[in-house]
Amino acid sequence: MINVIKIGGNVVDNPALLKQFVSDFAALDGPCVLVHGGGVMASQMQRQMGMTPLMVEGRRVTDEETLRIVTMVYAGWCGKHIAALLQAAGRNAISLSGCDANVIRADRRPPRMVNGEPVDYGFVGDVHAEGVNAQFILQLLDAGVTPVFNAINHNGHGDLLNTNADTIASCVAQALAQHTATRLIYCFEKPGVLLDKDDDTSVIDSITPAYYAELKAEGRVADGMLPKLDNAFAAIAAGVDSVVIKHAMNLGRNIGTTLHA
Amino acid sequence: MINVIKIGGNVVDNPALLKQFVSDFAALDGPCVLVHGGGVMASQMQRQMGMTPLMVEGRRVTDEETLRIVTMVYAGWCGKHIAALLQAAGRNAISLSGCDANVIRADRRPPRMVNGEPVDYGFVGDVHAEGVNAQFILQLLDAGVTPVFNAINHNGHGDLLNTNADTIASCVAQALAQHTATRLIYCFEKPGVLLDKDDDTSVIDSITPAYYAELKAEGRVADGMLPKLDNAFAAIAAGVDSVVIKHAMNLGRNIGTTLHA
Repeated sequence: MINVIKIGGNVVDNPALLKQFVSDFAALDGPCVLVHGGGVMASQMQRQMGMTPLMVEGRRVTDEETLRIVTMVYAGWCGKHIAALLQAAGRNAISLSGCDANVIRADRRPPRMVNGEPVDYGFVGDVHAEGVNAQFILQLLDAGVTPVFNAINHNGHGDLLNTNADTIASCVAQALAQHTATRLIYCFEKPGVLLDKDDDTSVIDSITPAYYAELKAEGRVADGMLPKLDNAFAAIAAGVDSVVIKHAMNLGRNIGTTLHA
Repeated sequence: MINVIKIGGNVVDNPALLKQFVSDFAALDGPCVLVHGGGVMASQMQRQMGMTPLMVEGRRVTDEETLRIVTMVYAGWCGKHIAALLQAAGRNAISLSGCDANVIRADRRPPRMVNGEPVDYGFVGDVHAEGVNAQFILQLLDAGVTPVFNAINHNGHGDLLNTNADTIASCVAQALAQHTATRLIYCFEKPGVLLDKDDDTSVIDSITPAYYAELKAEGRVADGMLPKLDNAFAAIAAGVDSVVIKHAMNLGRNIGTTLHA
């Protein structure tokens, strides 16, 4: 079973959380893939450079200068820092962007209408499972090397593209699932999917598509969770064995919500 | 024959030169390794962040914030940008720092006396051929993947270190030379070693150690070339077949100075 694990910028940007996470990740058994964000730090860096981060529907509008900054932050500092920490913790990590060994290709997002306004996202890309070079990832895993992906991918025509780390994790898991059993683990700031969003002890252990339909019909899923769960079930429909949603600090513990077919 | 090719920040920072270089590099036959600088851009970035670059004997004093900046610039923007351009040109490149797959380890440089003053270089590292994981580089080359190294390496204890790209190229070539025939190519802003430093047409085709001793005794080697040539002959003494010194824009042409045993 390959574990594809996603952590957000909130972990990457916090030295204490990152240290704990790296230690837990290094201790996991079996082949693992890590996908990390870094958005908080990218926004800080943009402000330090006198820019104002602009997000439209959760995606950063990425002009040329912003592309340079997010590439520096995600692929430079975050990726190499995490790889160095994992090496020190005994995991033989390799930090990769999609351009490296052509491991993930993305398509540049064309300008589109958002809420009635035309939006040019610039160097923003969308990834699909077909763009993932599963063969190369499997070769690395076979050699005992743990791939660590950031949100920078490429289009094969020389352009780097700023993509979405949640989607990368899902697409990598889907591509690997065509070859071997694969679990997708989303770490976030809650202990799992909650029955009562204000009660962190109300974690639902396990959700099937039928139960999910029921929860949705009853309006019991928090709005922010809906796209995450829809994407998770889409990954399962595409062959991923299960999707686990848990707190980043619970990586080493059997606590969280498991979605399965 | 493996070619290990070093380019400086002057090529990386210049879109037109970089485009030409990438095109020539992609067209080379056989296995190649690229090592690149990026110092001009790092200094620009430091200034944009309100810092003043401090160099002591050609090495950048690297405090924590400077380490973050050089990692972002070298491993982030420069490395991924070059990898994406090489992919577009048909070379299956992978941009690596030393922490990636533990491919190059460095030792943190202890504070030392320079011209009678104590200097703490901070997160500056020194690399040695013994710290290079030649096996992993050879595995990549066997798989048709071209490694692209930047000057960021690690010490295995979780620290990234700012090292010297010329030395990395030499150490990588020396480590590979233990396994297979290897040529080291230094690209710089002159067409080769010149008999008359003011005459770019006075390129010396070939230099043996005996001829080098003669040139030095006659005071005919420009001061700036001495450490470069000393290092080149040290690499040859350590098993590298030959070292070529040439202009970056002549990569595809048989022009330059070849040093050999």
